[in-house]
Amino acid sequence: MRYKKIRNTISLSKDLLNRFVKDGDIVVDATVGNGNDTLILSKLVGSRGMVYGFDIQEEAIARTRKLLEENNLLDRVYLIHDSHEKIDEYIQEPLDLIVYNLGYLPRGDKRIITRADSTLTSVSKALELLKENGIMLIVSYIGHPGGLEEKIALEEYLGRLDQGQFNVLRSEFLNQKNMPPLIYLIEKSSKE
Amino acid sequence: MRYKKIRNTISLSKDLLNRFVKDGDIVVDATVGNGNDTLILSKLVGSRGMVYGFDIQEEAIARTRKLLEENNLLDRVYLIHDSHEKIDEYIQEPLDLIVYNLGYLPRGDKRIITRADSTLTSVSKALELLKENGIMLIVSYIGHPGGLEEKIALEEYLGRLDQGQFNVLRSEFLNQKNMPPLIYLIEKSSKE
Repeated sequence: MRYKKIRNTISLSKDLLNRFVKDGDIVVDATVGNGNDTLILSKLVGSRGMVYGFDIQEEAIARTRKLLEENNLLDRVYLIHDSHEKIDEYIQEPLDLIVYNLGYLPRGDKRIITRADSTLTSVSKALELLKENGIMLIVSYIGHPGGLEEKIALEEYLGRLDQGQFNVLRSEFLNQKNMPPLIYLIEKSSKE
Repeated sequence: MRYKKIRNTISLSKDLLNRFVKDGDIVVDATVGNGNDTLILSKLVGSRGMVYGFDIQEEAIARTRKLLEENNLLDRVYLIHDSHEKIDEYIQEPLDLIVYNLGYLPRGDKRIITRADSTLTSVSKALELLKENGIMLIVSYIGHPGGLEEKIALEEYLGRLDQGQFNVLRSEFLNQKNMPPLIYLIEKSSKE
């Protein structure tokens, strides 16, 4: 797939999902929110694949279920009304990709945000679950109270990952107003 | 094209060239160095395309000419032994892509480096020459004396570009030792 448009973080993030997720993949949407990424993932993994979707908000799970039903794609998606922090209680199988959208639920309760400590717990568990060459994509919104603290903690953690085991790439728009979100792409190395 | 490997800045930069350059394109390698990017570009633009290659060092031009001759691709490449700062004296036609490798020539004289003032002059001229949806790719090495100063000046300039006219994305590896190079991807917006 080619893209000529970089545009913004959301289009870039969608583009990355399209590049990395293939038919038959087992993937996780750690923060389903309004279900947009879950829908994209459920199309990309195909009927042989599987999407796990977490959200701590009932509202998010309900919206996402509705969106998937409307698209006849709920059969390949397992929605979990719980925190992604407990990912290891629900998933034991090796994962091809996991995506996080850190911040708050758009159009939801802005008091409910992801927090540094639970995010780091979840990320470290998820990195364990990743297959070799597996990908973690983190979109980090920082414009809300607590957003910057989460970013700093996350970068400190990611910056310390062993470069023999993981490649950690951070991408950000330099000339956009209003603190545009950042994208972190973490690739688990193969043992070869 | 899919890639599963992010690996490092050089592989990422090659990957980006592969994504953005297509048959028939008119492109510029502002700093040919050992000719690696020039060779990649000359293959990607095909027989209908055109590559302009600049370098201020005779040694770099000679190495690149030899590499292209060995690959029978010199016919579509115009090598210019001069500074990319004078790009507007050599090129008037609209460009699809321009790539810079900022720093010093690998295996060459490490006293000869690109410098902030000439880089910014060149970049501003090249952004004018870019077509709508055209791409500028800058790989910035910062581990040498003067490298950090050039990076700071470049980011100050790029960060001020009008977000209605350009999308400026910076990518960097967070967990690599020895100051890995950064990648800047600048996309000129279309007027639509």
